Amino acid sequence: MTGTPHPSGPEAAVLDVAGRARVAAQDLALAPRARKDAALHAMADALLAGTAGVLAANAEDVAAAEAAGTPAAIIDRLRLDEGRVAGMADGLRQVAGLPDPVGEVVRGSTLANGLELRQVRVPFGVVGIIYEARPNVTADAAGICLKAGNAVLLRGSSSALRSNTAIVEVLRGAAAAAGLPEDVVQLVPGEGHEPAKALMRARGLVDVLIPRGGAGLIRSVVEESTVPVIETGAGNCHVYVDAAADLDRALAVVMNAKTHRPSVCNAAESLLVHRDVAAEFLPRVVRALQEAGVTVHGDEAFAAFDGVEAATEEDYAKEYLSLDIAAAVVPDLEAAVEHIRRYSSGHSDAIVTGSQEAARRFVATVDSAAVLVNASTRFTDGGEFGFGAEIGISTQKLHARGPMGLPEMTSTKYVVTGDGHTR
Amino acid sequence: MTGTPHPSGPEAAVLDVAGRARVAAQDLALAPRARKDAALHAMADALLAGTAGVLAANAEDVAAAEAAGTPAAIIDRLRLDEGRVAGMADGLRQVAGLPDPVGEVVRGSTLANGLELRQVRVPFGVVGIIYEARPNVTADAAGICLKAGNAVLLRGSSSALRSNTAIVEVLRGAAAAAGLPEDVVQLVPGEGHEPAKALMRARGLVDVLIPRGGAGLIRSVVEESTVPVIETGAGNCHVYVDAAADLDRALAVVMNAKTHRPSVCNAAESLLVHRDVAAEFLPRVVRALQEAGVTVHGDEAFAAFDGVEAATEEDYAKEYLSLDIAAAVVPDLEAAVEHIRRYSSGHSDAIVTGSQEAARRFVATVDSAAVLVNASTRFTDGGEFGFGAEIGISTQKLHARGPMGLPEMTSTKYVVTGDGHTR
Repeated sequence: MTGTPHPSGPEAAVLDVAGRARVAAQDLALAPRARKDAALHAMADALLAGTAGVLAANAEDVAAAEAAGTPAAIIDRLRLDEGRVAGMADGLRQVAGLPDPVGEVVRGSTLANGLELRQVRVPFGVVGIIYEARPNVTADAAGICLKAGNAVLLRGSSSALRSNTAIVEVLRGAAAAAGLPEDVVQLVPGEGHEPAKALMRARGLVDVLIPRGGAGLIRSVVEESTVPVIETGAGNCHVYVDAAADLDRALAVVMNAKTHRPSVCNAAESLLVHRDVAAEFLPRVVRALQEAGVTVHGDEAFAAFDGVEAATEEDYAKEYLSLDIAAAVVPDLEAAVEHIRRYSSGHSDAIVTGSQEAARRFVATVDSAAVLVNASTRFTDGGEFGFGAEIGISTQKLHARGPMGLPEMTSTKYVVTGDGHTR
Repeated sequence: MTGTPHPSGPEAAVLDVAGRARVAAQDLALAPRARKDAALHAMADALLAGTAGVLAANAEDVAAAEAAGTPAAIIDRLRLDEGRVAGMADGLRQVAGLPDPVGEVVRGSTLANGLELRQVRVPFGVVGIIYEARPNVTADAAGICLKAGNAVLLRGSSSALRSNTAIVEVLRGAAAAAGLPEDVVQLVPGEGHEPAKALMRARGLVDVLIPRGGAGLIRSVVEESTVPVIETGAGNCHVYVDAAADLDRALAVVMNAKTHRPSVCNAAESLLVHRDVAAEFLPRVVRALQEAGVTVHGDEAFAAFDGVEAATEEDYAKEYLSLDIAAAVVPDLEAAVEHIRRYSSGHSDAIVTGSQEAARRFVATVDSAAVLVNASTRFTDGGEFGFGAEIGISTQKLHARGPMGLPEMTSTKYVVTGDGHTR
């Protein structure tokens, strides 16, 4: 399957868990919704019952991270408390409440010769997830994969290893108690980069790999992997304020997109303003941003204001994930689109305008997963879109683009039924 | 975009055509259906008008191939005549007659907060196609890509270079005459393997790569490419004759699947027979296959018949594409599914049975793009499925699985419309 006849060491260990995941996936694919939902509720119950053990393991991770001088913001993402564990349990119950995507008939017809054709959703099989820091992703990802009928191989960051191990043990026990193979959820074993690399090369054993994390992680997975990859997350999102914008709305959208939660991928990182409204809008938006603690990195027009730093090429390309914003004045909508085509990561880009023509042109020419008209980029989110659960936000064009819910975690199969039909 | 700051030689030439395709794709994405259909009809007209030039170029390819001692079967695939050129023109007109997938609203709703959410089909952008031998693929692929709004980069085999160059020149001229950029259709320039490799690494310039050809070509593209790939075509297809099969139907399905057109990917390569019907079915099927000129490579039970060769492990794994079939008797349906899981390429696998329970079990547990019940594997085909046009048959689980028509040649984009909505 992998072209390596006799692997050893970390690779052998990864191929071993992948092989067990494959066997478990065959059982899971046949599990009816009721059994999967029962397992999800059992997992939620077990997490609540096992909170003390999970928190004890997490405390060791946090102590080790503190001793290593890890920045406070990262330690905050690593740290669990009773509320966060309860949140994981709630998430599992929410997934249990969602419709089962498996078995959905996506397309169907009876052909001219009487053959019945149905395209039906089926699980991928084995899904690998490579992620950073936050241990609550462990439970979220396991729950979504399980509901979609996929066995999951989880590769979290080494700083969260004790937490993830404790969470996975709880989930596996609950799965087994609910009558599913415990190997529907596994951690990828081993230290360093080799195990992740082995996962990326486990073609034929792993069906899909989803990296969740920074741009560097995603790039390395795309470069290394022979398993098909769904890229997620990098978000250099833009808000463009058009000549025909209502400037009160524009200000509200810019402030929300930048400051509502600056550390997430759908936060705005760049502001573009049509020159016809620059004289009126720039003083207002610069003051409001600065009052909210945002550092503006601007072109000449913006840099004329006190406290605005001169923007470099890198500022326009950067995903700050902080209270910083790059800003520029553009001569027209076409220049805004050109700027976005050049710098956007293809995640979410917004226009604020009262012009139907400008909105249509922006929607047609901006090539991103989500294009928003008179709405904050913060709305690009599985929860906001009503998907009920989200495994990530795809920034690629193949298979899934934008927020990915349960249906995006499945493939399809054609079922063709006849009574002895031949060509 | 590609991580190579100053490429030179073949790589620079490929990045140049890819960059021009990217520019052309921006125009093409905005072209309404009427303009695309007009271009397709113009291409068909131009191919008919330019038949003599295309055939002259093709005659040179054929002469060179003959001088090089190329096998007759491959020369037959390479050779064009007036009928085949007319067939290409007809294919382009058929594509013109199909609905435009671009702009189709796949999903849409109004969220609780009044935001309007629409998921809309959009072109991929630039599609690369790497293919072998048959020059008619050049026109087919260009037509399908154009209708779906994609600029195409074509990399055919060197043996067909003169033919492909002539066809592409005709298509480009017609596109330009119809008001589209001529760079919507381009050949990838250069000799040897380097240009194809450069195409596989042109991440950010090329959106999707589709290899069409043998297993070796597809494996090398999957290994080398950092551009997302859709795998197509390798077909080790099975027919399983169940204990509850009507044996007349079973015989008809086996014979059709094996002999109707043995050189294509949906032809059957393996036959599995339940032991309860082996005594009655084996004599009939072996005789019928042998009378049709098929060599049977069988297990012990089959090898008891005159003229049946003993099957090796490789026979069961092989895509013969010839009048050969591997055959085995299995103790039950589970063993048949196990055999298929082990050897199938995940293309098309069929069961012949009168048992509803066996059919359900087979459909649920065989993990292939198409699972057929009482029907020949030969039906897995875009034309048979009613898609009107087919770019290939995907054997991967991501994005598209099974025959790919126009909708499979698109991505989607979320369009979110509000009136100043913030979170």
